[in-house]
Amino acid sequence: AGGRPTFTAFGGKGTLQIGLQAQFDAAAYFEDNASVKRSGVDLGDGVNARRIRIPFVFRYGDITATVTPDFGGSPDGRQNTQYLYEANLAYMPFKGFTAALGYLQPNISLQDAPSSNDFMFMERPAIMDVERNIAAGDARAAVGARYYQDRFFVSGFLTGQAYGGQSTTTATSSVGATGSVTTAISTTQPSNGQQTGAVMRVAGRPVYGEDYDVHLGFSGSKVFSMNQNDSNRLAQNLALSVQPELRVDTSKLINTGSMPATGVYTWNPEVGLRYQNFLVQAEYVEIGINRQHQAGAGLGGATQTPDLTFHGAYVDASWVLTGEPRLYQSARGGFGGLKVAHPFNPGTGDWGAFEVAARYSDINLNSHIQRFLAQSVTGGVAGGQQDVIQLGLNWYPNDHLKFMADYQIVDVSKLSGATLQNQTGLRYQAVGFRAQVAY
Amino acid sequence: AGGRPTFTAFGGKGTLQIGLQAQFDAAAYFEDNASVKRSGVDLGDGVNARRIRIPFVFRYGDITATVTPDFGGSPDGRQNTQYLYEANLAYMPFKGFTAALGYLQPNISLQDAPSSNDFMFMERPAIMDVERNIAAGDARAAVGARYYQDRFFVSGFLTGQAYGGQSTTTATSSVGATGSVTTAISTTQPSNGQQTGAVMRVAGRPVYGEDYDVHLGFSGSKVFSMNQNDSNRLAQNLALSVQPELRVDTSKLINTGSMPATGVYTWNPEVGLRYQNFLVQAEYVEIGINRQHQAGAGLGGATQTPDLTFHGAYVDASWVLTGEPRLYQSARGGFGGLKVAHPFNPGTGDWGAFEVAARYSDINLNSHIQRFLAQSVTGGVAGGQQDVIQLGLNWYPNDHLKFMADYQIVDVSKLSGATLQNQTGLRYQAVGFRAQVAY
Amino acid sequence: AGGRPTFTAFGGKGTLQIGLQAQFDAAAYFEDNASVKRSGVDLGDGVNARRIRIPFVFRYGDITATVTPDFGGSPDGRQNTQYLYEANLAYMPFKGFTAALGYLQPNISLQDAPSSNDFMFMERPAIMDVERNIAAGDARAAVGARYYQDRFFVSGFLTGQAYGGQSTTTATSSVGATGSVTTAISTTQPSNGQQTGAVMRVAGRPVYGEDYDVHLGFSGSKVFSMNQNDSNRLAQNLALSVQPELRVDTSKLINTGSMPATGVYTWNPEVGLRYQNFLVQAEYVEIGINRQHQAGAGLGGATQTPDLTFHGAYVDASWVLTGEPRLYQSARGGFGGLKVAHPFNPGTGDWGAFEVAARYSDINLNSHIQRFLAQSVTGGVAGGQQDVIQLGLNWYPNDHLKFMADYQIVDVSKLSGATLQNQTGLRYQAVGFRAQVAY
Repeated sequence: AGGRPTFTAFGGKGTLQIGLQAQFDAAAYFEDNASVKRSGVDLGDGVNARRIRIPFVFRYGDITATVTPDFGGSPDGRQNTQYLYEANLAYMPFKGFTAALGYLQPNISLQDAPSSNDFMFMERPAIMDVERNIAAGDARAAVGARYYQDRFFVSGFLTGQAYGGQSTTTATSSVGATGSVTTAISTTQPSNGQQTGAVMRVAGRPVYGEDYDVHLGFSGSKVFSMNQNDSNRLAQNLALSVQPELRVDTSKLINTGSMPATGVYTWNPEVGLRYQNFLVQAEYVEIGINRQHQAGAGLGGATQTPDLTFHGAYVDASWVLTGEPRLYQSARGGFGGLKVAHPFNPGTGDWGAFEVAARYSDINLNSHIQRFLAQSVTGGVAGGQQDVIQLGLNWYPNDHLKFMADYQIVDVSKLSGATLQNQTGLRYQAVGFRAQVAY
Repeated sequence: AGGRPTFTAFGGKGTLQIGLQAQFDAAAYFEDNASVKRSGVDLGDGVNARRIRIPFVFRYGDITATVTPDFGGSPDGRQNTQYLYEANLAYMPFKGFTAALGYLQPNISLQDAPSSNDFMFMERPAIMDVERNIAAGDARAAVGARYYQDRFFVSGFLTGQAYGGQSTTTATSSVGATGSVTTAISTTQPSNGQQTGAVMRVAGRPVYGEDYDVHLGFSGSKVFSMNQNDSNRLAQNLALSVQPELRVDTSKLINTGSMPATGVYTWNPEVGLRYQNFLVQAEYVEIGINRQHQAGAGLGGATQTPDLTFHGAYVDASWVLTGEPRLYQSARGGFGGLKVAHPFNPGTGDWGAFEVAARYSDINLNSHIQRFLAQSVTGGVAGGQQDVIQLGLNWYPNDHLKFMADYQIVDVSKLSGATLQNQTGLRYQAVGFRAQVAY
Repeated sequence: AGGRPTFTAFGGKGTLQIGLQAQFDAAAYFEDNASVKRSGVDLGDGVNARRIRIPFVFRYGDITATVTPDFGGSPDGRQNTQYLYEANLAYMPFKGFTAALGYLQPNISLQDAPSSNDFMFMERPAIMDVERNIAAGDARAAVGARYYQDRFFVSGFLTGQAYGGQSTTTATSSVGATGSVTTAISTTQPSNGQQTGAVMRVAGRPVYGEDYDVHLGFSGSKVFSMNQNDSNRLAQNLALSVQPELRVDTSKLINTGSMPATGVYTWNPEVGLRYQNFLVQAEYVEIGINRQHQAGAGLGGATQTPDLTFHGAYVDASWVLTGEPRLYQSARGGFGGLKVAHPFNPGTGDWGAFEVAARYSDINLNSHIQRFLAQSVTGGVAGGQQDVIQLGLNWYPNDHLKFMADYQIVDVSKLSGATLQNQTGLRYQAVGFRAQVAY
């Protein structure tokens, strides 16, 4: 009853689907004065249109072409925000197999598997967002394939930049110091060498029954070649950062800053267990940064340039009070949303479905640092550490509407100063609300 | 015959509508050399795509979800222009009542009531645009409800920022002077406290008949909490400005500049009278700015910080030469467009409908000033005053097409200089043309 | 079988069409170190979404309204890129005649005639892109008409700026030096006088048969009035530049820089000849820049300000290996794409259509210069010259899909330095790939 609007086209041999996903967020932050003074950050209450997506899906024969503009963002309506969620071609010659090309979301991790309509909380765990933004994520230029059966999912993609990733700042070419030319042909030369990488995932539910699913999986990604910023091909930089797990205030509280790097890898094991209307999931992620080991090339003029490692993990749990299970989606290799048993209807006294959820999430963007020792001595990075404890309540009046309320306790620890002598982290609580409609 | 394209969806239980509104403008400005020299402004002829909107309207049960991208603007295609007209959810449990949430146009004033397809002139009176942009207007984050009956309309909305209103310039958090921290966690922290306000309207046509409507109404808005720009929560600023009533040249000729403020309110009474194919409307608006009354915190270092008051008014009149009346729309609480009796058809010799219109419009953004007295002495603001006398001719070949021609006489008076000794206003005439298609 | 999705609307009296054009590009550049050092340009490999267009076409009676957002670009997703391909109204009272108004692509040249779906190579010849961007091209504000018969095509348009052409940089009004006013009313006044021009084209196939078409044509454009940048109306500037004929790296290797100009004209003869599945086309373009002949107003303080002339030409040839002809489109006055005889079908062993193509293209943006003589002496412009030899292979699995592979040999010659003593051009080879879907 009532899926995405679908219209017959191509003389009856195909269809055009037009859908909608709209998420309206509001949030309030409760930060004490001491924290504001220590951190220099005063988080702001307000509202935001997180996702406003209109998918256009053309199906004709075994080819599907999809373009999904996105008018939401973090924050909404800013000119430097992505405004396309995906644009790609998929070829499905037989059941379970899809080869795809274009700007798409390559499969990585258990948290990235479900649609953003089916989130337990308003945002993914921070570490999962950091991982997916390295070589996967939304609107990533990619070519590859996925295949699934009832118990088994595998996918692999070669990936490049994300949509809109080309710019004069990522790559302005100039021989400058080393060349003998004084007048360059053009002073703005975006992109002299875009990132190339790969993303893979193996997952499935080896054991399952009517009442339970046991999910196991393993994801990983690798950047072979970084964005290249000058003709010497030395200054290839990466910066990792993330908003706290609520995006009305868009401050990024932890941030590695720009790190010279020759490559990046990530890997993460995935586990999930559903028993009836109860679901628990957990993942651990490690991110490694390879660097050139040459004298004087370290961060901040450090004499050492060790490889760096960052990591994070989360565990979440959902209990659907009205009894509906979160259904396993073999085609995505993960748990999706629930199907409302008794849609909201004042006439019959039905209220839809209710779900409570809890999550603990940690991300550590510190590597090779020691308090009271300058980063230039250890060659490390003090990006900060963030822990979030979160409780959620979700109301699903029907399969198209969803209202979410999240309560967070956030603890950010971040060292700064010449010898990392200052603690400039912050602690606060926040509440977030979301109204969502999806067709 | 020929409303908005509407397609059955949701298994027959709902619809998807896809519409179009396109307005192409051209204008020429006739300004004498003396005025250019005095004002420093030389208005430019040209063209502009004022509105290019594609509404997507999903109706399913008693829920309507609407997203309307806008590819027009003032000027068109600029990156700092709004590119979403609305995105919201509406719940209509019984006839006449709508609760809505998201980015929408909260009801305010008689001029804001009709669709922009049904304007008498190419632009609203300047004072009406200034009023609606404070806490209402397009794509305003809002939650509230409206209710109407045949003779009666009432609405109330809590409102926040407009779409795209979050930015690093409206709110970069830094404890700076008062804190003891030298290294902030992040240097770009958009939005530490968005505007919150409310908008209400009561209107209706207590007396009406076949041949006449008498409209009375009252609108108002209030900003409780301004956008907050720093951790001291002192620098909460507001600037009022507006283009002249033609937007090909986008210069804003009157402008208060940035005013520290603690709150804003507006109120305006509305009257309208239709007799057959003749319509006259008038409104008066007052805008009040509340300020903190502390020494030295006044504008420009003024020792006084009086509350400020700005105001404006207009009266317009339309006469449809071909006899069609502008119809009253109870659901909007105002007068809408006309229904063409004899659509353009060279075969039958029909030409559609023609309308002539006239308007006088005034806006005064001066408050607490006196010529030859510095603003710092009075604590006032010399934003300028603008009067526009305007004649219009509209041709409606059918219910979807409209061609408009406007002739304006504009008189802007603006004092400047250390003691407001200079008159830097300008006087000019202008003609504007619009081609419009609406489905 | 399977045109653009079309839906009945307007109570059966009209239709809404929703289409799609998506082009995903990848490219690699092979440049030797000497060329990089000499030119200061290191071209970057990568990917790009060249065009992501969703046409919305409303037909009702003899009026067609079209709006086509474009989410691709060069590069994709950048905020300063055009994001609307067209938005216009067309009136078609009788067969062959169309009057149009709005933002559209006015007809100019043979290369501009076909849809970008039907290109032989990934990009047009450079000179053709430069010509069309002066007063024609995508999303150009225009009003005019076209008329065609079987053998004959004629069109003429008055044109203004392109969509998004208004900005504070093209026109900030200030009397500055000449006026006596110290405080301008507003410091940002976009657009005090937009470009106005005209574009015309006469073309056709006077001789044709089943197996052959002989195309002859002539196009031209003229800018009467340049964008005006200040109140003195002196500094009216034009810059001509273009990317090489592959747009993954968006460097513009030839560039005139900003030239004061009072007017511009272009003209180009067109020839084309099809015999069965073989097609050859050629065009020559001349671009003339009129300048004010006053002392000291020349480029770079030159004492001479000669009028300038730039030119270019190309010849291309296509051979469809599988026998399909490229069909002549009278309504566009040029050659379109081919109709796949045997669509890809592994079951029947059909592979679709294959085409090979070759092109030589030249563009010369030098005028009135001499090596070892300063530009200020001759009053000329050393914009550079670019030659591209190109081979292409196109695979059409069916009428909606197309895969392109291009191989280029590029030779750019560009003089620079005080007396144009340095050769800072570059030579390189490049390969480009495109996957395209079009409905």
